[in-house]
Amino acid sequence: MIGEKIKRLLIESEKTLVKPAEQVAVVGVKNRLDHALLLLTTDKYAVVPVLDDQSRMRGLISMPTIMQTIMDIQDVHFEKLGEIEVGEVMDRDYPYVLEEFELEDVLHMLVDYAFITVVDSDGYFKGIITRSEILKGTNRIAHEFEKKYIIKDKETIAQ
Amino acid sequence: MIGEKIKRLLIESEKTLVKPAEQVAVVGVKNRLDHALLLLTTDKYAVVPVLDDQSRMRGLISMPTIMQTIMDIQDVHFEKLGEIEVGEVMDRDYPYVLEEFELEDVLHMLVDYAFITVVDSDGYFKGIITRSEILKGTNRIAHEFEKKYIIKDKETIAQ
Repeated sequence: MIGEKIKRLLIESEKTLVKPAEQVAVVGVKNRLDHALLLLTTDKYAVVPVLDDQSRMRGLISMPTIMQTIMDIQDVHFEKLGEIEVGEVMDRDYPYVLEEFELEDVLHMLVDYAFITVVDSDGYFKGIITRSEILKGTNRIAHEFEKKYIIKDKETIAQ
Repeated sequence: MIGEKIKRLLIESEKTLVKPAEQVAVVGVKNRLDHALLLLTTDKYAVVPVLDDQSRMRGLISMPTIMQTIMDIQDVHFEKLGEIEVGEVMDRDYPYVLEEFELEDVLHMLVDYAFITVVDSDGYFKGIITRSEILKGTNRIAHEFEKKYIIKDKETIAQ
């Protein structure tokens, strides 16, 4: 469990921590790789969520994955970009939490992943939680906690 | 200033926070874009530091930058990859700190950047500081701080 005082400085609320779906760049599972590559290049994202036509979360697609798909030892086969669907090569093993997530779980997952996907219980994509938001909270803790509270070592007091 | 108690949980020391140069994937300023693209694809990095032949920090190169360089409205010109040097298109506006950095500065910069470069006063590349390391510290604070200390609100006490 995360202590209440730390939690209140770390995030405003679980809800505002989530960047809502409508503000997140995504690609469709049936889009071709050329479309995905153009979006990643233009928006300068390393990886984006892949949704089906019902806006359900299906996977992640990254530029390295796209490049690996069209490269072989000899050459880069750019002509394949228009033929392959995102759903064929996307990464299906993505980190996600439900909307009623525990902050504790998200903090652990963000050590290894740049963002965590938020889905509802039917798998519909609701948004993402980014490292940047938690780092804003870490800054607040670093600057305000010892100003706001008097802190005593429990062991010292017990003696 | 960051309070000492928070700081001790957030990081072990400024020194161990830095991932040393020899463990970081980098490319040379005179490497061609095909080499950089292969490294980014194989190692699945979004962006890597660019060093000169003396191991001085010169910039950053990312996959979107490489793709933008060889794409125009009509087509992707893959044949150009072997002709263009990394130094011609790299991003020279990269975030960095000196080895004697303040944790406070790093925390602020990591809200906007995935990693911060560490250089010495002559510009030699010494390593990087990643968001992941700070998030490990955030996890320690979240889990251990209120277990370890008794915390009292300063305003309540003043009343």
